Amino acid sequence: MSDLPNRVTFHEHGPREGFQIEDRQFPLARRVALVDAIAAAGVSRIQVASFVNPKVVPTMADARELFAAIEKRPGVRYTALWLSPWGFEQALATPQVDRYGNVVLYASNGFCLSNNNCTKLEARARLHEWTALYDDHGVALEQVYVLAAFGCNFEGEVPIAAVIDEVRFVVELCREQGRELPRIDLDDSMGWADPHTIRQRIGAVREAFPELEIGLHLHDTRGLGGACVFAALEMGVRHFDSSIGGLGGCPFARLKDRVAAGNICTEDMVFLCHELGIETGIDLEALIEAARLAEEIVGRPLMGRVMHSGSLAEYRAAAR
Amino acid sequence: MSDLPNRVTFHEHGPREGFQIEDRQFPLARRVALVDAIAAAGVSRIQVASFVNPKVVPTMADARELFAAIEKRPGVRYTALWLSPWGFEQALATPQVDRYGNVVLYASNGFCLSNNNCTKLEARARLHEWTALYDDHGVALEQVYVLAAFGCNFEGEVPIAAVIDEVRFVVELCREQGRELPRIDLDDSMGWADPHTIRQRIGAVREAFPELEIGLHLHDTRGLGGACVFAALEMGVRHFDSSIGGLGGCPFARLKDRVAAGNICTEDMVFLCHELGIETGIDLEALIEAARLAEEIVGRPLMGRVMHSGSLAEYRAAAR
Repeated sequence: MSDLPNRVTFHEHGPREGFQIEDRQFPLARRVALVDAIAAAGVSRIQVASFVNPKVVPTMADARELFAAIEKRPGVRYTALWLSPWGFEQALATPQVDRYGNVVLYASNGFCLSNNNCTKLEARARLHEWTALYDDHGVALEQVYVLAAFGCNFEGEVPIAAVIDEVRFVVELCREQGRELPRIDLDDSMGWADPHTIRQRIGAVREAFPELEIGLHLHDTRGLGGACVFAALEMGVRHFDSSIGGLGGCPFARLKDRVAAGNICTEDMVFLCHELGIETGIDLEALIEAARLAEEIVGRPLMGRVMHSGSLAEYRAAAR
Repeated sequence: MSDLPNRVTFHEHGPREGFQIEDRQFPLARRVALVDAIAAAGVSRIQVASFVNPKVVPTMADARELFAAIEKRPGVRYTALWLSPWGFEQALATPQVDRYGNVVLYASNGFCLSNNNCTKLEARARLHEWTALYDDHGVALEQVYVLAAFGCNFEGEVPIAAVIDEVRFVVELCREQGRELPRIDLDDSMGWADPHTIRQRIGAVREAFPELEIGLHLHDTRGLGGACVFAALEMGVRHFDSSIGGLGGCPFARLKDRVAAGNICTEDMVFLCHELGIETGIDLEALIEAARLAEEIVGRPLMGRVMHSGSLAEYRAAAR
């Protein structure tokens, strides 16, 4: 059962998913400083902003200026989210964006309607359009998210078969088009996963499609984030989306208190990996400082733990 | 590796360990209401207060009045903490206390000196005195805590052998005195445990003393509490101390921000158990309401998650 990876990568989502849900825009220079601090700590992929309708998400209205203000570090990918061809065009017009082709599919129709205003079959049809658009611009399809992969606030339990169906659709499309398989990320924005469903669903996808690389996008909505990551690590999962300080959450997930519904916390999960002997390439102490900067920026206590307690490094050093 | 128990019990520590660290005393009626709400939710063991020096811990000065004000429910044990014979006398003089003999040992000398003002060998000697005192009053020795069982802020790594030594001392003492073995609780007040050290140490104790019942007292200091509980459940551990809303922390553990260092959160861990199909005898929805009451009492957001997001019950019910 235990197949711990040697190395794990985190795709930092705090600057985008975290700040996106806030009801005010923080000063651009502060947000730039946070992205820089996260990159300096060794995080190799950072989602900086989204290119979405500024009327719907006003906090992301200055995404282009934000990208332009970042001093990019070699070896770090500065990514963006887009949901529409218009958004993708904005990203294309922003030279600092490290473009990577990604598409969103849904295991639940109800969440798709709420989040993306279309049925899950329409989302599949859009995958064709997206790959054509990416091809036109020489952008490789790297990643497909399957949302509501563990359950849905609108539909309840989501059958494993519904997840497998979406993955199969991607695999067959790639086969038909002679395209390399993208990574598949199982998404639990609504916080339904537990360590057993993590094992079951990753196991089922891997059994059906052994050649796939699987990643996870988890939220610590109900306090099981760390247990789910641990279970996934033992399944050999090497890619996680996460959010510094546990910033953020999904504004469309019908939660009572969205503040409590952030992504799994980057620095806490880096701490977990390091304690288990897994490399991340990240300087935990520097990342903790970045998390404290994030807390200063939002001006309220964040949900991260190790940013408040400190790591064990100082105690180990003092004991030597 | 997986040996999930059918049923898990939680010993709620919030009213004692949680309120003990606060810098002010909340109204007695509010604290009574919280204990009553926790009991009404089905928690079968609640640590209500400590009988300790009111000059050192002024928030616990009215422990006797607190016990007297509780309307006890059948089947619920209302426990107290004491660290000295004086404290035990206070508990004996408080008829509402459900007395159970418990003793504290230390795997680390440094933590023992800080927490208990004696060496760990002196703590062992006191175990003799405690059992004699308990015998005099017809109180059975039910539980021995081994503190700093996973690491120590004062001494760094704690060898497994140091834990085994303390457990062996208890086992041999009981054998000599023809006494029933108490439960051994491994304690991680300082937040050093990770899921692998949980497995290693529980495995080592169980291998050396297969007849022992093992419990855990964990803090979610660095975000690994849930992962540690999951690993322990898979080792068959059935007893956990926990704290409603994640209230509390240990004031002697040299943490920078004690607010972040509470026990594992009762309702989040009950949610974990229920999702894994483990019975707890607890009504999760009622417990969530009790956690919200705890948050009202302390007047700041608590660290618990499911108390803010709600459980999955309403989504599952709506989907039917």
